[in-house]
Amino acid sequence: MNKYPEDSKTTLTDLVLPSETNPLNNLFGGELLARMDRAASIAARRHSRRIVVTASVNHVAFNKSVPLGSVVTVEAKVSRAFKTSMEIVIDVWIEDRESGRRSKANEAIYTFVAVDDVGHPVPIPEITPQTDLEKERYNAALRRKQLSLVLAGKMKAKDATELKALFE
Amino acid sequence: MNKYPEDSKTTLTDLVLPSETNPLNNLFGGELLARMDRAASIAARRHSRRIVVTASVNHVAFNKSVPLGSVVTVEAKVSRAFKTSMEIVIDVWIEDRESGRRSKANEAIYTFVAVDDVGHPVPIPEITPQTDLEKERYNAALRRKQLSLVLAGKMKAKDATELKALFE
Amino acid sequence: MNKYPEDSKTTLTDLVLPSETNPLNNLFGGELLARMDRAASIAARRHSRRIVVTASVNHVAFNKSVPLGSVVTVEAKVSRAFKTSMEIVIDVWIEDRESGRRSKANEAIYTFVAVDDVGHPVPIPEITPQTDLEKERYNAALRRKQLSLVLAGKMKAKDATELKALFE
Amino acid sequence: MNKYPEDSKTTLTDLVLPSETNPLNNLFGGELLARMDRAASIAARRHSRRIVVTASVNHVAFNKSVPLGSVVTVEAKVSRAFKTSMEIVIDVWIEDRESGRRSKANEAIYTFVAVDDVGHPVPIPEITPQTDLEKERYNAALRRKQLSLVLAGKMKAKDATELKALFE
Amino acid sequence: MNKYPEDSKTTLTDLVLPSETNPLNNLFGGELLARMDRAASIAARRHSRRIVVTASVNHVAFNKSVPLGSVVTVEAKVSRAFKTSMEIVIDVWIEDRESGRRSKANEAIYTFVAVDDVGHPVPIPEITPQTDLEKERYNAALRRKQLSLVLAGKMKAKDATELKALFE
Amino acid sequence: MNKYPEDSKTTLTDLVLPSETNPLNNLFGGELLARMDRAASIAARRHSRRIVVTASVNHVAFNKSVPLGSVVTVEAKVSRAFKTSMEIVIDVWIEDRESGRRSKANEAIYTFVAVDDVGHPVPIPEITPQTDLEKERYNAALRRKQLSLVLAGKMKAKDATELKALFE
Repeated sequence: MNKYPEDSKTTLTDLVLPSETNPLNNLFGGELLARMDRAASIAARRHSRRIVVTASVNHVAFNKSVPLGSVVTVEAKVSRAFKTSMEIVIDVWIEDRESGRRSKANEAIYTFVAVDDVGHPVPIPEITPQTDLEKERYNAALRRKQLSLVLAGKMKAKDATELKALFE
Repeated sequence: MNKYPEDSKTTLTDLVLPSETNPLNNLFGGELLARMDRAASIAARRHSRRIVVTASVNHVAFNKSVPLGSVVTVEAKVSRAFKTSMEIVIDVWIEDRESGRRSKANEAIYTFVAVDDVGHPVPIPEITPQTDLEKERYNAALRRKQLSLVLAGKMKAKDATELKALFE
Repeated sequence: MNKYPEDSKTTLTDLVLPSETNPLNNLFGGELLARMDRAASIAARRHSRRIVVTASVNHVAFNKSVPLGSVVTVEAKVSRAFKTSMEIVIDVWIEDRESGRRSKANEAIYTFVAVDDVGHPVPIPEITPQTDLEKERYNAALRRKQLSLVLAGKMKAKDATELKALFE
Repeated sequence: MNKYPEDSKTTLTDLVLPSETNPLNNLFGGELLARMDRAASIAARRHSRRIVVTASVNHVAFNKSVPLGSVVTVEAKVSRAFKTSMEIVIDVWIEDRESGRRSKANEAIYTFVAVDDVGHPVPIPEITPQTDLEKERYNAALRRKQLSLVLAGKMKAKDATELKALFE
Repeated sequence: MNKYPEDSKTTLTDLVLPSETNPLNNLFGGELLARMDRAASIAARRHSRRIVVTASVNHVAFNKSVPLGSVVTVEAKVSRAFKTSMEIVIDVWIEDRESGRRSKANEAIYTFVAVDDVGHPVPIPEITPQTDLEKERYNAALRRKQLSLVLAGKMKAKDATELKALFE
Repeated sequence: MNKYPEDSKTTLTDLVLPSETNPLNNLFGGELLARMDRAASIAARRHSRRIVVTASVNHVAFNKSVPLGSVVTVEAKVSRAFKTSMEIVIDVWIEDRESGRRSKANEAIYTFVAVDDVGHPVPIPEITPQTDLEKERYNAALRRKQLSLVLAGKMKAKDATELKALFE
């Protein structure tokens, strides 16, 4: 079976509550990581229709602080499906109450594995990207997977063809 | 200024966690009421671009239980704007992990008031419904407001023309 | 078996914590709805001695804000028992720390159903109101049930005799 | 001004939720300590009408486990007022859903100090016990205060006349 | 088998979050009691390698307030093992962000019982104190146990030889 | 001023509670990310004695599940200090209750920035690694910083000398 990134799109819009903020009154990085994990797990589940568990979190940069009282929108979508694992790209937006203007706060990439009731990996459907952004993310996902395998010592750097191109 | 219901649409998709379930392993009614309140408050804020406070909750029926581990989607949209208050209609959906089928679990109606920094009500934009469902909800909102005024003793039943029609 | 409203009386006095407040430093409407649900479920359980689940929430008005640090008392009592369901009336009081004066903040009405281990409705004891207030609420409960049935399309408005009287 | 123990009586009836239980599915001791602290602080505040802070917890024995899903009632009442501090006795009851039978699960004693806005101790009203149990607890409170002073090295054991009697 | 206090040493360093503070912006006594209970239960589990349940909390004095944003370190270590129960001493430290200076905020003593899967007490290893402080606390633990038995009416004061010495 | 990795060492040992687990009864990835963020932020604060905010999370792999009821130890230590930012390496251990055996569950790398009261970056002390592991992590930190700059498009791949070596 083949599916599309849009099929897994998951939106989690919620407030930043006082119990989730640091001394500068901004959302704790850790809380945002947890929200992104929940949204990404739902996207992974929608693609695979299986129980899913977090396999890894790619590099996440916190470029913009998220102040107390903000409305935060976390949008997660499967960017590429491998044999039993999926890469999910998560975009985080905050919006200004008075102007209504929405701005990008973060972008993160999580990987999930689909498992059966006892935790063994199971095959998942393929995915076909449709929009330009989806295609771009689909291609980048392979480079990221290679980088992750190289860093984990499971692939030799010289075999990571997609990745190597970056450094030449 | 005039706005549309779609401008305030707010989606909060999240999991049912073990700490939110009753002895039958279903989501507590009270937890669902709290989630709906957060989604509705964001919709009200998006329409008014003001601080908003819950003014009332209309009749809410819990027809369908929401089991532990469900993916629950709460969708809130302003159905009608009055002078300083807004009615928000909230639809709650759950989806089956295996089939991916989405089913309606609940429908609720909350009213919010837009206020300034010291809590005084302030005027809000008008709203123009567009789809058939939005128009139907826009009209029903007036009947509900009359019913609420009658039950609160602030309007005489005989003056609630919209409502009275129901009983004749 | 017959029981009295007093048998189910449930008092939940607690503080308003910082994690439960909105930008105006008042208790979120949604949090109060969740506390009322917990107190009401205990009252329903005390009357029925069964597992109980929230069936509906009647109209709730939030007339008075509940500031951070308040002591809030939620009092729930079964107002009327039907075949398998119960109406519970909940009164919410806040008290001023310095004067000790107690004032009414809210009133709400929830309906619960008693169920067995697999969630099927089971019969519950009857109830006999004793005080004037209990009698008044006992009578009003029937009108509310009729209203609820009419609004749900399960009873014709012309058959809702108790309710119809209001509009004539 | 003089007050009575009954004036400060505080009842906190609530459920034991899944997030508060240990591997044996009983309420964590620490959670019960936190609930008792909240109820006791409200009782102390009702007696003093001041901001209050926990000064100490007396010996607390957990004789009886409190299973998941229990209805737990925490009742706190000021037992004796000293110059700026109060002793609060807390009784904890659980009730069986099916029989409705209530049994004592715990008893604890906390001490609170009344303070002003910057945290300095302030004088509080006196208290007059009325029932036999209140009188007994009022007398025991003095012995406990002496024991606490002796253990803290702030009173010589030979001067703790009330306490010394116990060992002779 | 014999073990050492160091084998059970448990350190829980964490922040004070806004949701855990009272109106003076200090950590609630009840929250600190809950954190100490969790750390102590891990120490008891490390000594006994069994499921453990809180049996009692000894006198705890809150001499020093713990402000919002503090780094709090809770250190728990088994001080003495009896047949099936253990006494755990807990030291609480806070540190000043700017100077890095660490100061003692609290000291508490909890008792835990090791149990099997159905909650029956089971024997635990003995313990041999090593440092001077460990030896001192090991000896004091016996006096505290006697005091607790006397206060519970399970030992006659005249038989509490260790304790009696204090008053002579 | 110069400091050592040991000066910032932060240990957070705590239980896995039922409210933090997924349908397989293992700790949610997102919860672990949040705990690691709190421990890392304390380590960063101990090194810098400043307010600190999460700047980024490096690649985190979840190789091993963490079951409900586990004792989890999160250990964080600053691995390298840059001008205003610090890299923190976090090791996560779980221990088996019966055997007492400790096993590595995760390893993660977070970057924090030290800021003043209005959120502007401020200089921090240098760090000198001491043990072999600390030296290895100190060196790897530079490669990771280069990788992060390359991926963010802020450094050309050909200038990332440390990193380039990996692919030749």
